[in-house]
Amino acid sequence: MHPHILIIGGGFAGLWAARALRHAPVRITLLDRDNHHLFQPLLYQVATAGLSAPAIAAPLRQILRKQDNVTVLLGEAVDIDTAAKQVQLSDQRKIGYDTLILATGATHAYFGNDHWAEHAPGLKSLDDALRIRRQILTAFERAEAEDDPDKRAAWLSFAIVGGGPTGVELAGTLAEIARHTLRGEFRRADPRQARVMLLEATPRILGSFPESLSEKARKQLIRLGVEVHTGKAVKTIDEYGVSVGDERIAARTVIWAAGVAASPLARCLDVPLDRAGRVPVEPDLSVPGHPQVYVAGDLAAVQCKGKPVPGVAPAAKQMGNHLARVIIAKLKGKPALPFRYRDYGNLATIGRKAAVVDLRGFRFSGVFAWWFWLAAHIFFLIGFRNRLVVLIDWAHAYWSYQRSARIILGDEEARPRTPDDEYDTAAEATHQRTESAATD
Amino acid sequence: MHPHILIIGGGFAGLWAARALRHAPVRITLLDRDNHHLFQPLLYQVATAGLSAPAIAAPLRQILRKQDNVTVLLGEAVDIDTAAKQVQLSDQRKIGYDTLILATGATHAYFGNDHWAEHAPGLKSLDDALRIRRQILTAFERAEAEDDPDKRAAWLSFAIVGGGPTGVELAGTLAEIARHTLRGEFRRADPRQARVMLLEATPRILGSFPESLSEKARKQLIRLGVEVHTGKAVKTIDEYGVSVGDERIAARTVIWAAGVAASPLARCLDVPLDRAGRVPVEPDLSVPGHPQVYVAGDLAAVQCKGKPVPGVAPAAKQMGNHLARVIIAKLKGKPALPFRYRDYGNLATIGRKAAVVDLRGFRFSGVFAWWFWLAAHIFFLIGFRNRLVVLIDWAHAYWSYQRSARIILGDEEARPRTPDDEYDTAAEATHQRTESAATD
Repeated sequence: MHPHILIIGGGFAGLWAARALRHAPVRITLLDRDNHHLFQPLLYQVATAGLSAPAIAAPLRQILRKQDNVTVLLGEAVDIDTAAKQVQLSDQRKIGYDTLILATGATHAYFGNDHWAEHAPGLKSLDDALRIRRQILTAFERAEAEDDPDKRAAWLSFAIVGGGPTGVELAGTLAEIARHTLRGEFRRADPRQARVMLLEATPRILGSFPESLSEKARKQLIRLGVEVHTGKAVKTIDEYGVSVGDERIAARTVIWAAGVAASPLARCLDVPLDRAGRVPVEPDLSVPGHPQVYVAGDLAAVQCKGKPVPGVAPAAKQMGNHLARVIIAKLKGKPALPFRYRDYGNLATIGRKAAVVDLRGFRFSGVFAWWFWLAAHIFFLIGFRNRLVVLIDWAHAYWSYQRSARIILGDEEARPRTPDDEYDTAAEATHQRTESAATD
Repeated sequence: MHPHILIIGGGFAGLWAARALRHAPVRITLLDRDNHHLFQPLLYQVATAGLSAPAIAAPLRQILRKQDNVTVLLGEAVDIDTAAKQVQLSDQRKIGYDTLILATGATHAYFGNDHWAEHAPGLKSLDDALRIRRQILTAFERAEAEDDPDKRAAWLSFAIVGGGPTGVELAGTLAEIARHTLRGEFRRADPRQARVMLLEATPRILGSFPESLSEKARKQLIRLGVEVHTGKAVKTIDEYGVSVGDERIAARTVIWAAGVAASPLARCLDVPLDRAGRVPVEPDLSVPGHPQVYVAGDLAAVQCKGKPVPGVAPAAKQMGNHLARVIIAKLKGKPALPFRYRDYGNLATIGRKAAVVDLRGFRFSGVFAWWFWLAAHIFFLIGFRNRLVVLIDWAHAYWSYQRSARIILGDEEARPRTPDDEYDTAAEATHQRTESAATD
């Protein structure tokens, strides 16, 4: 009986580990609470109605269907018993393992203000993205329906908290939607008067980039029509807006892109975590004192050449591949090698024809950086069909300034449907007649 | 000041009426509770994970943005005051009109068993489609996780109530998903053992078609692996299955395609409705006693050449265009002509390479009918981009047997996310680091 490798999390780290083990004499179980692998770098495109949800996600079963040594399981792990080598699921199921790979990534964190979540959704899952999309599109509709100019202005004000890559992408895209996409579609509200504000607590946006590129990004955002506020922390967030420093900003739409923290599952390991809840691991990515447990991706706190490995997709993929090598080495009785991170650089898109790229010191920005970013993301997107559909949506968006997914979905509470309670037998009578409406 | 035409409903009837009035000296308000026009004939493709929601919907504002005499309004009409010529919205807004066009279509009806709705969702809106998609995909996941063979079989059993075109499409597509799409993706459950049952109360399916085509459709469904049960009405529906006649069928997934009734809004008109809640209108589609109120689409009960006009998309479009002509004629003081329905035929798709077509007596079925159906639906789909994306998704599905939208969304209650309540200031510390995960 081959040893059982349990991988929790079907993100870049977990999925790449499973694929790299395809020829290894092991039984793999890949557990995820979603049925799909998500291409998170393009999640902001779903939130801003540029792409449909299925365009950036692929079912884990489909990706792995030909890999016979993998079983994909839909479920949420809630506890880990390292002594019994067992994982507990939310539906009471228990799964044993010989080797555990923990790759559950990060969730957004509100710095201890969890009540902000209600007014300022974060962006980590497809459901988050669809909620944000609904809020953004609905805000313009509310503005159109509003008579009071101040209230209308508040509906046309969008505050994005956090000047990291996600915040910058959201702000740049929102500005384009207001300035171009919606132009001429409203009769009373003027989307071009919308305010898009990017609020960053530290002195500069894109802090993970060199200062020169942060400055270029700021200039490009301003050119796109974004108000960039730096150096002041958000004090309060409510239904009607935000307070920054001692300034009050009226904005009915607030989006949270400011903080993420490691998945809470790490706390089950009974090992000291770092301040962000990540697991400080050994050089081979194993958990100190638990040689059968490994951590990969955003959940792992690991150093390489004295520098912390950043929480980016390429690092997660590399950790996944490394763990496959470690496990195969162990099976052959060979020693495990330490993880080495190959840094290929750092990209951030800002908006139409605007991006910044830092390739190991080779830095550029603007149109060329944007095309470079576009090509890289299309290339890394999983699945031929997805790449093609995304390309078409983007080509279409590029030439027409239109967005292909401007559909408001699932806001049932705001739009109750009257249940039909009469016409009982009557409905039957016309069933065939009205039914045929569905095919012609 | 030009007269104000209020159109309620952005479906085929309402949207076509608005577009046909583009050169008329009128002010048009198009009111819809959704922000999009839905291409309903392909809704079953979203419910069966073949297409993404945005692929078959387009924002009404975008469609009408260049038509200056139209204002699009998002809102739900709840009452009509024909004396004051005013429509009441659910959010207390009131909208006056000179001429009212009521085109709110039909909703699904449960023959007085509204409690069935909880266990057997119907298919009218995109939200309905996404709910059904989630249930279908989740059912296979539950089967894979289930140890008890009987319970697993129940999760692999799908009952579709109603043998009209929608029921036939859903059954045929579900059979293909079980037999082909999911093949080899599960390790414990075998999707090919799934039971797909089509339950029709009348003696034959596709009752709106000639008997010969109903029979051909039945044979094609059986070939695809569908169990066709006719001549027995459903007695009860609950969480665990359905009772048909005196037979009990265990099926954890039940879909309602059996009955629709006209939109309840018609009741506000204080005129006698037919047994299905439709408004019997004058030959020019005006409401008896209310010359300023017209009804179009599925909501209108109208005869043409002694036959009732069927509730199909072409009829709705024709009614919309006719109302534009009537309104223009009235403005010129000319008499309104009666509505004439041009019947181009009736199509129904059954599944891969299977369909039935009845073009004014010219009847055919099978592969050719399927290609004919495909071409017709691609052609009539609104928007160049949508057509292209739908074509690609279908070409991809045709060659690979894969479905492009197999993503489970929005089942929050079933998988609660643990809120992050610790790592307060800590999260801030690593904000930049983990944030950059979003762009690389």
